[in-house]
Amino acid sequence: MEIEELSGFAKRAGFFWPAADIYGGVSGIFDYGHNGAMVKRRFEQLWLSYFVLRNQDYHLIDGSTILPEKPLVASGHAERFNDIIVGCSKCKSYFRADVMLSDMGIEVHDGATADEIEGIIKDKGVRCPKCSGELMEPKAFNMMIDVSLGPERADRGYLRPETAQSSYMNFFREFSITRKKLPMGLAVIGRAYRNEISPRQGLFRLRELTQAELQIFFDPEKFDGECGELEGRKMFVALYPSTKEAEISSEELVAKGIPKFYVWHMELIDKFYYEVLGVPRGRFRFFEKGGNDKAFYNKVHMDLEVMVESWGGFKEVGGLHYRGDYDLTAHTKGSKQDLSVSVDGRRFMPNVLELSFGVDRNIWMLVDVFLKKEGERSVLSLPMGLAPYDVAVFPLQGSGDLEAKAREIASAIGSRFRVFFDRSGSIGKRYARMDEIGTPMCITVDFDTIDEKSDKHNTATVRMRDDRSQERVGVDKLEGYISKKLALS
Amino acid sequence: MEIEELSGFAKRAGFFWPAADIYGGVSGIFDYGHNGAMVKRRFEQLWLSYFVLRNQDYHLIDGSTILPEKPLVASGHAERFNDIIVGCSKCKSYFRADVMLSDMGIEVHDGATADEIEGIIKDKGVRCPKCSGELMEPKAFNMMIDVSLGPERADRGYLRPETAQSSYMNFFREFSITRKKLPMGLAVIGRAYRNEISPRQGLFRLRELTQAELQIFFDPEKFDGECGELEGRKMFVALYPSTKEAEISSEELVAKGIPKFYVWHMELIDKFYYEVLGVPRGRFRFFEKGGNDKAFYNKVHMDLEVMVESWGGFKEVGGLHYRGDYDLTAHTKGSKQDLSVSVDGRRFMPNVLELSFGVDRNIWMLVDVFLKKEGERSVLSLPMGLAPYDVAVFPLQGSGDLEAKAREIASAIGSRFRVFFDRSGSIGKRYARMDEIGTPMCITVDFDTIDEKSDKHNTATVRMRDDRSQERVGVDKLEGYISKKLALS
Repeated sequence: MEIEELSGFAKRAGFFWPAADIYGGVSGIFDYGHNGAMVKRRFEQLWLSYFVLRNQDYHLIDGSTILPEKPLVASGHAERFNDIIVGCSKCKSYFRADVMLSDMGIEVHDGATADEIEGIIKDKGVRCPKCSGELMEPKAFNMMIDVSLGPERADRGYLRPETAQSSYMNFFREFSITRKKLPMGLAVIGRAYRNEISPRQGLFRLRELTQAELQIFFDPEKFDGECGELEGRKMFVALYPSTKEAEISSEELVAKGIPKFYVWHMELIDKFYYEVLGVPRGRFRFFEKGGNDKAFYNKVHMDLEVMVESWGGFKEVGGLHYRGDYDLTAHTKGSKQDLSVSVDGRRFMPNVLELSFGVDRNIWMLVDVFLKKEGERSVLSLPMGLAPYDVAVFPLQGSGDLEAKAREIASAIGSRFRVFFDRSGSIGKRYARMDEIGTPMCITVDFDTIDEKSDKHNTATVRMRDDRSQERVGVDKLEGYISKKLALS
Repeated sequence: MEIEELSGFAKRAGFFWPAADIYGGVSGIFDYGHNGAMVKRRFEQLWLSYFVLRNQDYHLIDGSTILPEKPLVASGHAERFNDIIVGCSKCKSYFRADVMLSDMGIEVHDGATADEIEGIIKDKGVRCPKCSGELMEPKAFNMMIDVSLGPERADRGYLRPETAQSSYMNFFREFSITRKKLPMGLAVIGRAYRNEISPRQGLFRLRELTQAELQIFFDPEKFDGECGELEGRKMFVALYPSTKEAEISSEELVAKGIPKFYVWHMELIDKFYYEVLGVPRGRFRFFEKGGNDKAFYNKVHMDLEVMVESWGGFKEVGGLHYRGDYDLTAHTKGSKQDLSVSVDGRRFMPNVLELSFGVDRNIWMLVDVFLKKEGERSVLSLPMGLAPYDVAVFPLQGSGDLEAKAREIASAIGSRFRVFFDRSGSIGKRYARMDEIGTPMCITVDFDTIDEKSDKHNTATVRMRDDRSQERVGVDKLEGYISKKLALS
């Protein structure tokens, strides 16, 4: 599937489209329609349950998206959260240098400076990709979006470039409230903002994005013992400097010097993508960043990448970052509040392990992986529990006793599942509409259901999205039947 | 309870505090800690289930918080979303004129112009409340926060001042996708932003806030017949021009000329506050805005106000606004896309009924209404289902068989309820900690629970937050017992 085809599907089926599209849209900013918003909300809930809430020492907090300038100076974002951009002296277009060069087949490492870019442009004789004009000098461009508050708009702040800063700034207060124990986790699900110069179609390079990030604060001397035992999974990992993934076991990773607690969390993420989301083995991998591609504060940095066919390759949808004590040390300096802790008689600066996911990217990825075209028919085989609706209920004909019975069933199961009721169009059309938005099963009420003389009295047909199998199920057994199917698949 | 006392509680108990507080905080911007974030999330979920998801034609969407300039010119925000501010020529402080005057006991109507304010200041000889200096000329100040995007930061946009605009701009696409039926509802739960000049302590005048808004698009000729029958509730309403509430029945309101569909939604909101949230009768009221206090585009406008003791009076926490066709007409003009619809052979511009709630204000209100001090003891009697945890599990002593049994119970009920496990401190202290954050019930595992010879074997003590009653319940019956208590209260 191409990007355009997936985007077209997403518009048609109520998933997502450019924000303010009646005004021509905004580059790099999207709205979610009624089906996409529900998938997004359910993805967030699933992420929260899986990574955060099942550990009593991990918490969800909600931090502001507007931050004052000081913490972002302390974190290094004000100085270093830059892209190198280059403008054309003739047509006045601007480009993000690494994207422009990559589109020309010239790969540039992640932290390349303006000088390095300039060298490449001169060496290769690169000219404007739009008009072939001469390019201006590349320059560092800060990607944060600034805001000004107050009556004279003199109080400078920024829209947060990542949710993580909210967790770092709230670490010490939360540590104190929750009785000073480590490890402690603080998660934020919310918006982050970046003034992307080359936003692209789709949900991969957005100016307004939703992140789900968990910061785990821990004692580096103890976390190996506290996090749990390794399962011994084999995972697809591209270990720096290799860029090709191979199946590597947890034990091998530890033997190669990656901390045990880090590998334990790789297993956790691997299980989430393989077992919970159902992304096929080999279609996702950990990709280790090293050398110039790794941020200097990260001790270990792996991206979680999924093969996204519409983009023609592996794309980053998350990451696992062992950040050491960079963040709390930076905010200790910036705020002049000592954020070190004293536990068991030792005073130290807690270390941070960050689990970071782009929600929008994961939504695009899920559609990419699970949308199948079978001739005219589109089936979105989303993982159970992530679809906009759990189940649909149809009366075979839309009026009278059949409809009354169908509404009765819809209402009875409606307190537990999200139910779509549909009485119009042929049953085939109604199935097709549900397949397209990923509804896992449809229940049809027919004349046998309400015919007291029929041996199918008080049963209805349950039809499954994925294999189109049909089964006759007793009306009073539907709730148990559905919850079993939702949990099993 | 005073504002300071409630704020102190909110910090201590993990509910909310000023954002970036290690850097001194930001005026009008708050973070939610781990308990507050969970109450907020659960409030949003409850609101969504109650107002949106139980109607199949009402949907949740998720719109961007950055909007381009054009739609906000069309909506009137760029021109009219103003406060009148006044600066002091001596100390250079700025004040929101109506707040400054109100603090001096001079009430000003909602839409007062700069000229009117200037007249009042001259008439009453008002001087700077900080330094008694001479005040400068009042001026209109646009409260939107602007952002600039793009490589030259030349693309002007705004942080949305209300979530509603996302629903209006997506109306036509959603109407088309959902098979062109009215009424249709589009809800957004998310951030909105206002450059408040006089932000105050607490969650009532924020620069970054969370709204939960539902826009219902309908055919004005039909909605009375479609919305449902009136229950005939008696509600506390202050009808313009009166500013004092009285108990008025639904029928009386209709007789006074308020549209039936509007009164039907008043009943819906009344039930939410009284029956779902459990705010006492008489403690909340509908307050009708009229004359100069009513926005010109509203045909009927009532605020939902709750008596918030920490603020010493009724405070707005929501509103019900019959906006006519103002919004879709404005965006038709602004976007040059015809947003009128053709239903049953008639072409018309759908009308809008807006249900608007400030999530942060409701959180503050809930704490204000439900936090009780009983000597040293604080009890937060939040409605069941809104507390950060549903239930706590304690072993009487924290080790060995008792702890193992308690953990077994916590784990068994943990898939269905949010459970807090605590093994440290006296049982009394553990109860007190749970009372303070609103946990509705605590389960204690003692020696009888694990003593096979005891007649209390395999039972545990369930202690209720509100009346401190204790009951012995069979371990295998706990799940049913808890779910019954949570649903009933």
